[in-house]
Amino acid sequence: MHSDGFQPPPLAAAQVAIVGLGLMGGSLAAALSSTQACRQVVGIARRRSTLTTALDLRFIHRGTADIQEGVREADIVILATPVRDILARIKALGPILKPGSLLLDIGSTKKVICEALGALPAHVQPVGGHPLCGKETSGLTMAEPTLYRDKVFVLSPLPRTSPAALALAQSLVLAIGARPLILDPERHDRLVAAISHLPYLLAVTLVNAAEAMAQGDALAWKLAASGFRDTSRVAAGDLTMMLDILATNRTPILEALHHAQAQLAALTRYLEENDDSHLQAALAAARNRRLEITS
Amino acid sequence: MHSDGFQPPPLAAAQVAIVGLGLMGGSLAAALSSTQACRQVVGIARRRSTLTTALDLRFIHRGTADIQEGVREADIVILATPVRDILARIKALGPILKPGSLLLDIGSTKKVICEALGALPAHVQPVGGHPLCGKETSGLTMAEPTLYRDKVFVLSPLPRTSPAALALAQSLVLAIGARPLILDPERHDRLVAAISHLPYLLAVTLVNAAEAMAQGDALAWKLAASGFRDTSRVAAGDLTMMLDILATNRTPILEALHHAQAQLAALTRYLEENDDSHLQAALAAARNRRLEITS
Repeated sequence: MHSDGFQPPPLAAAQVAIVGLGLMGGSLAAALSSTQACRQVVGIARRRSTLTTALDLRFIHRGTADIQEGVREADIVILATPVRDILARIKALGPILKPGSLLLDIGSTKKVICEALGALPAHVQPVGGHPLCGKETSGLTMAEPTLYRDKVFVLSPLPRTSPAALALAQSLVLAIGARPLILDPERHDRLVAAISHLPYLLAVTLVNAAEAMAQGDALAWKLAASGFRDTSRVAAGDLTMMLDILATNRTPILEALHHAQAQLAALTRYLEENDDSHLQAALAAARNRRLEITS
Repeated sequence: MHSDGFQPPPLAAAQVAIVGLGLMGGSLAAALSSTQACRQVVGIARRRSTLTTALDLRFIHRGTADIQEGVREADIVILATPVRDILARIKALGPILKPGSLLLDIGSTKKVICEALGALPAHVQPVGGHPLCGKETSGLTMAEPTLYRDKVFVLSPLPRTSPAALALAQSLVLAIGARPLILDPERHDRLVAAISHLPYLLAVTLVNAAEAMAQGDALAWKLAASGFRDTSRVAAGDLTMMLDILATNRTPILEALHHAQAQLAALTRYLEENDDSHLQAALAAARNRRLEITS
């Protein structure tokens, strides 16, 4: 399947172009620049002000709003925009990328993206990626070079990906302080539906249900202590990013939502029927699992 | 209604007996002792080892496992055990409390407890209380004198409560660094169902649904990043405490659960039907509310 003879340069000699300088792309640029892990970091963003800020912060060596110009000489191109934007970029950029270059994305869902990567011209080496970090805040001003440190960074190589291209992606992940984990796209999408997309939808559910329950009593928010704040934190996540995730991982997310609905219905029934023993069993199962995760 | 002529002493001259030396009672004892806010702190706990630890940590001046002996001379008695235990204590302690003494509880639900406080003999001054703080951990070893600092501490006086008794309770709340807020029991219980008990039940729902979704794939928990950990944190809460809360605040909690089920069903339907505009509206409402709370 390795139809291309070109070999990528080592990371230290590579020019890296990052498309999208938000929280994730900006932090990636900052991590690469601050550690001098590669030869040059090129930042690509729509807004001039973003490019100026990224240059001022020394996150990038060069910035451009012209994506075609920005990626043309790059040995590694990283797509760091919302998932549906990544899908459009993959299609548009394929023909103009340098022979032997590595195209890595850091989108939150992998099956749909890896399918798009599979349709790239043979001269491009594709690897899907997903760093499991982030914040409920977004934008370049929230970016920091340590965002990826000690975080799991999923890599999904395709059957056509050369060992050298995968090794280059792994060395980039290690350079920013993250822990590479190779995972196939379907398993990735199922697991993140459970541990990332469902928490988001339950946080949204919490805020909207609490709002309905409060019936306009503003004291509710004054009383909201750390329990409410932690449980609802991710509901403040970026809308475009979340809508793209939901749209591109529908089947596993719907399955997770059905499990959550069944669980919530069971808790309601136990409480309605004063069924203390079943209630206790459900609460204890969650408590034990939660204690295991953090121990 | 102030059928009792006895006046409580000022806090500085008061002996305070705390029944239950877990996270909440232990932290309260620690806060009072470390600031020398009152004359003496008496700790009451079932286990000898708890009393020894509390004495070693200088959280209490004196400890006893004999509750009758412990409360007999107290000017202020604070009940810091799970709600159903508090209910039993109120009934049992009423007749033996010192005339004019203040009985304060710090249970998480207020309607049922304030009803029990209302049945106390006339020589006791009752005030319901609920400090809005806590952790997912429990026990004396997790206690700290700063737990209450800057936290809202709800006080629910009864119609029979004397102004002097309420003032004493308020001075105690201020002494431990918390912010007293007078609130009637029904409004309290409705609001905490929304901002405390519902978050707990949704955290339980998340952990159990994620477990079902993972189908034994242990990688799920390895991938679980800060979003999952924060959203599920309160699911590790103390079981007895949570079961007592659910049992004594059933009606508002069931209403909150029905709001949550309706919200979750709507999100599921929007996703099933690819209804991006309704989905976006629901996510945006939660996001805006969440941003408002923390701003």
